[in-house]
Amino acid sequence: MTPPTGPDSTRDRILAAAKTEFAAYGIAGARVDRIAKAAKTSKERVYAYFRSKENLYQYVAAQELAAIAEATRMDPTDLPAYAGRVHDYFAAHPDNHRLMQWGQLELTADGPGNATTDTVHRKTEQLREAQRAGHLDPAWDPLDILMFVNQLATAWAGRPDLLHRPGAAAQPAARRAAVVAAVRTLFPPAGPDSGPDLD
Amino acid sequence: MTPPTGPDSTRDRILAAAKTEFAAYGIAGARVDRIAKAAKTSKERVYAYFRSKENLYQYVAAQELAAIAEATRMDPTDLPAYAGRVHDYFAAHPDNHRLMQWGQLELTADGPGNATTDTVHRKTEQLREAQRAGHLDPAWDPLDILMFVNQLATAWAGRPDLLHRPGAAAQPAARRAAVVAAVRTLFPPAGPDSGPDLD
Repeated sequence: MTPPTGPDSTRDRILAAAKTEFAAYGIAGARVDRIAKAAKTSKERVYAYFRSKENLYQYVAAQELAAIAEATRMDPTDLPAYAGRVHDYFAAHPDNHRLMQWGQLELTADGPGNATTDTVHRKTEQLREAQRAGHLDPAWDPLDILMFVNQLATAWAGRPDLLHRPGAAAQPAARRAAVVAAVRTLFPPAGPDSGPDLD
Repeated sequence: MTPPTGPDSTRDRILAAAKTEFAAYGIAGARVDRIAKAAKTSKERVYAYFRSKENLYQYVAAQELAAIAEATRMDPTDLPAYAGRVHDYFAAHPDNHRLMQWGQLELTADGPGNATTDTVHRKTEQLREAQRAGHLDPAWDPLDILMFVNQLATAWAGRPDLLHRPGAAAQPAARRAAVVAAVRTLFPPAGPDSGPDLD
């Protein structure tokens, strides 16, 4: 296989380098000259492609958010399984959690084009629909459901130190099982007979 | 009332200014000259008292961790009420959540004297004791209980934007009630008859 040589390959290398840099140092701490060097290009090219460091972060974060959604696929009729997938995703990609966390701390969350807010809105609507269809208890506000499932699923994503602390934690498989069990207790998956009763 | 004029008042002003600066900019982003200026002292005095910027952060974070513990008092026999207090604490002090989050992102969590790790250890032991006494379901790993309760209680602490988003969220009181309800579902408080059955 030959590496890609099209016009986008510099741009792709910049994005890959930016992701690593932002995950490590955050937005304020990231240095465009380090990104340029890691991407084997110049600072000028980075700015030509992405205008500003913050804009580059926004692009990388939106890309990552789409990758998470693609890899974890929220299924409102089986939130425990979804929580397990989110847990697995961040266990396999701990840096991606850092990448997103920096944005929450460093950006004003109500800025224009905040990708997280759009995702929250879309998922909340999916959950509301599942409530209407009788798959989920309608007593919960769908935004609470989304937040709680995410919080439980990412419980370990921000604390790899605790997950791997000798003696303190059981095996990773037990951690995952506890996440899934907690979400199942709160939001049981729809059974085969679920759905509105049409009698 | 007269303001404190003892030898510690400069030190106290430095701590107050540092807390504000670290909450806003994190550790790497904080500037000791801004802290000194806000505390009406000199950079040299700041270093004389606290040696380094990171050491100053550690001091402020440990102080804040103690304040949270004091204000929220974990009661292993009533975790829903504890979760409500944690939620209230961060709703009233949103900057304090930011202050702690920066540390989790910027510091290597297994560094010496990491106050968070000590707190986790102490609280986990309290929960284990409550399980032995029959107040809490022993099927959960106590570290999972602690993490899940914290994650649910702080669900809104990191996202004030969502909490106050017009239309999207119900009243803050409903948010709090949902947190308490979720923790109650997972970890019901010990009833008057709880405790080991000695028949």
